[in-house]
Amino acid sequence: MGRQRLAIVGGDAAGMSAASIARRRDPEIEIVAFERGPYTSYSACGIPYYVGGLVDDADRLISRGPEEHRAAGIDVRTRCEVVAIDLAARRLTVRTGTGEESEEPFDQLVVATGARGVPPPIPGADAIEPARTVDAGERLRAALERGGGSAVVVGAGYIGLEMAEALVDRGLRVTMIDQASQVMATLDADMAGHVQDAAEGTGVRVVLGAAVEEIVVDEAGAPVAVRTADECFEADHVVVGAGALPDVELAAAAGLQLGDSGALRVDDRQRCPGHDGVFAAGDCAESHHRVLDRMVNIQLGTHANKQGRIAGVNATGGDERFPGVIGTAVSKICRYEVGRTGIGEREAASAGIAVVSATIKDRTRAGYYPGAGPIWVKLVAEPGSGRLLGGQIVGVEGAAKRIDVLAIAVWTGLSVQELALLDLSYAPPFSGVYDPLLIAARATAKLL
Amino acid sequence: MGRQRLAIVGGDAAGMSAASIARRRDPEIEIVAFERGPYTSYSACGIPYYVGGLVDDADRLISRGPEEHRAAGIDVRTRCEVVAIDLAARRLTVRTGTGEESEEPFDQLVVATGARGVPPPIPGADAIEPARTVDAGERLRAALERGGGSAVVVGAGYIGLEMAEALVDRGLRVTMIDQASQVMATLDADMAGHVQDAAEGTGVRVVLGAAVEEIVVDEAGAPVAVRTADECFEADHVVVGAGALPDVELAAAAGLQLGDSGALRVDDRQRCPGHDGVFAAGDCAESHHRVLDRMVNIQLGTHANKQGRIAGVNATGGDERFPGVIGTAVSKICRYEVGRTGIGEREAASAGIAVVSATIKDRTRAGYYPGAGPIWVKLVAEPGSGRLLGGQIVGVEGAAKRIDVLAIAVWTGLSVQELALLDLSYAPPFSGVYDPLLIAARATAKLL
Repeated sequence: MGRQRLAIVGGDAAGMSAASIARRRDPEIEIVAFERGPYTSYSACGIPYYVGGLVDDADRLISRGPEEHRAAGIDVRTRCEVVAIDLAARRLTVRTGTGEESEEPFDQLVVATGARGVPPPIPGADAIEPARTVDAGERLRAALERGGGSAVVVGAGYIGLEMAEALVDRGLRVTMIDQASQVMATLDADMAGHVQDAAEGTGVRVVLGAAVEEIVVDEAGAPVAVRTADECFEADHVVVGAGALPDVELAAAAGLQLGDSGALRVDDRQRCPGHDGVFAAGDCAESHHRVLDRMVNIQLGTHANKQGRIAGVNATGGDERFPGVIGTAVSKICRYEVGRTGIGEREAASAGIAVVSATIKDRTRAGYYPGAGPIWVKLVAEPGSGRLLGGQIVGVEGAAKRIDVLAIAVWTGLSVQELALLDLSYAPPFSGVYDPLLIAARATAKLL
Repeated sequence: MGRQRLAIVGGDAAGMSAASIARRRDPEIEIVAFERGPYTSYSACGIPYYVGGLVDDADRLISRGPEEHRAAGIDVRTRCEVVAIDLAARRLTVRTGTGEESEEPFDQLVVATGARGVPPPIPGADAIEPARTVDAGERLRAALERGGGSAVVVGAGYIGLEMAEALVDRGLRVTMIDQASQVMATLDADMAGHVQDAAEGTGVRVVLGAAVEEIVVDEAGAPVAVRTADECFEADHVVVGAGALPDVELAAAAGLQLGDSGALRVDDRQRCPGHDGVFAAGDCAESHHRVLDRMVNIQLGTHANKQGRIAGVNATGGDERFPGVIGTAVSKICRYEVGRTGIGEREAASAGIAVVSATIKDRTRAGYYPGAGPIWVKLVAEPGSGRLLGGQIVGVEGAAKRIDVLAIAVWTGLSVQELALLDLSYAPPFSGVYDPLLIAARATAKLL
């Protein structure tokens, strides 16, 4: 057997994590990574901060560029799109920026194609490029710098909210439109209301329950307005902050299985069932949700990095397991920080899981300590046992990272009764003598 | 049987928590609380902020004053010192501020006498009043306001450090002296070094390994200098930030048992063994340390509140358990936040527990996100199993409350291997894509 060759499709978090750990584990294997864009290992999460000007140089979003990966012994081919995978022949068809195609063999394969923004099925939608990559972010920022005083953001999820804030930071008048009846569908409506308050407090006009019916474009094809059933919002800039779908077209065409979530089916070793030596990781793959006990597709850099790493270990003869996810996420939205983990009341209802739930409002510091501000904590627990199933936090600085405390509690199956008496830290700059999480746990325990 | 009478000795966190929950649970019982000082339910933890001027009004440190407690149906007697407990006769001897003594019967008793600063056994020590109560804090601040440009703080634990920072905030030249070879003995020496850097960065002169041999006083008995073997430090003000001992003299004289820690022995219902209806809670009582599996005395408001509440529940016919402690604590020291939970390397060594340990340095936000600063995380785990036994964190804003994540992990017996892959939150304002805790867990897991 000659030298083994590991091919990676996709050069961002999952793909390059796989490549990097494989390189460290096996000095002999040949590793080639194909990325259709110009960059590798970038922070898509940082794009709103670059668009808003909080980060001035797009290069800072690149945690490791192609040259660095090459110096580490990974053959990175940027502006190279994999257009076909032949699993039987173990061969990729790759198209370069100039349109030439070549065949590339592999022994092991990691599919890390990520997710792609999907234009809504309305007229004009094609005129908007979702800012999901660094180069798309650069094009958006360049457009903003050319002028214009108003913007419409379509979609009020966390990316839409971060984009709206970024545009307000640039001095634009911003309207954010979503067909849902609340912002941030990952939160329950009551908690999402506080986030909406924060966005509106910054000056964003939030229009909810309004489906966008058309992106109105001028003769040159540039967007000039966004039309809903009731209103037409003129805009110098239109930004889409709506969700994305796992980018699985290539892999599905090759015969890899899709799960119910629409993402690539993998086992807990990131293996694609039925295809030895073929792995998938990141936004294009499924994960096991430990609370819902079903496969889900959650597109986050943190999962992509971990899964990519595990794929890279297992592609080079190792045996590591990805233990699954519990839906932990955090974001900063205007004056509030927002965190969530496990399941909320709405998710519980749609999964047919009975829960008890309590929400408390407290302050992030001792009342007398300067800088104290509001924090809301909502907990969701299993009736009877009191096992914590999920938590949501909204509040001022210092609020959101407390979600990790709840994440460990959900992960380990802790009950709210036990949490209520747990030895959490206290000092006046960080909380009242009862941490808000303890107060929320006690309030929830009372309902059992 | 007539109306029952619950007596509380000590009107701060533990005592008034007991009184308050007892009042809510039992509208019939008579509740009388004796406090030798003028205040109830105050935040001793807030005193350094009052001394430093960050909090301007001492009343803000009082979370509930005597009048509020009285309005709630608790007979609070301030400036009343309990000088004897007769357990057989179920009777207290109480001395008022004017020196009169009276007998007070009780059916149930909660001993919540707290802790007291103990003057070091050196000449002049009696000249310094530890600022452990709000009224002592007021006297210290009044003295500072009368003038003087220099101060010596004796003791470099967290209270000494907070006091040193407070005095620097007031514009004083501050020297902090401790006989230990490091600041903050609750941290391992390597982590304590960062805290020392922060104190010195603020301008505090830190003198370690130097036992104070004398507080030099003038003819009027006022302190003017602090003398060690090597040096004499002139000071307009001398502040003692040294440790305190559980205040058990009264209870011990009455025949209540002391544990090895020197604090009052209690079971997990806060009951004093051998004496039905007699409870102890807070700084004067022991707690079970779940990692060390022995009784300890940790003087913190968070335990005092919880234990007091449990004593009050059980004194009124309830049955609640205090589940013990794991040594979680947090403080803000100059530019750093500091947290610890479980056991450190030194505690492990002195308890004869073999451990592996790793320390990592990272940043509190994504590298490109403004305001990123250093964070150090040290983990201590059981060899073989990898079970997390403790953690220490030092870092800039946003660092310390992460200790609660480790607290839950220690509490639930999570391994560092599992922690390394756990679904913690990520967004650029809060961490790199791998949270520092995950990085630390992975570094520790590698050593197993």
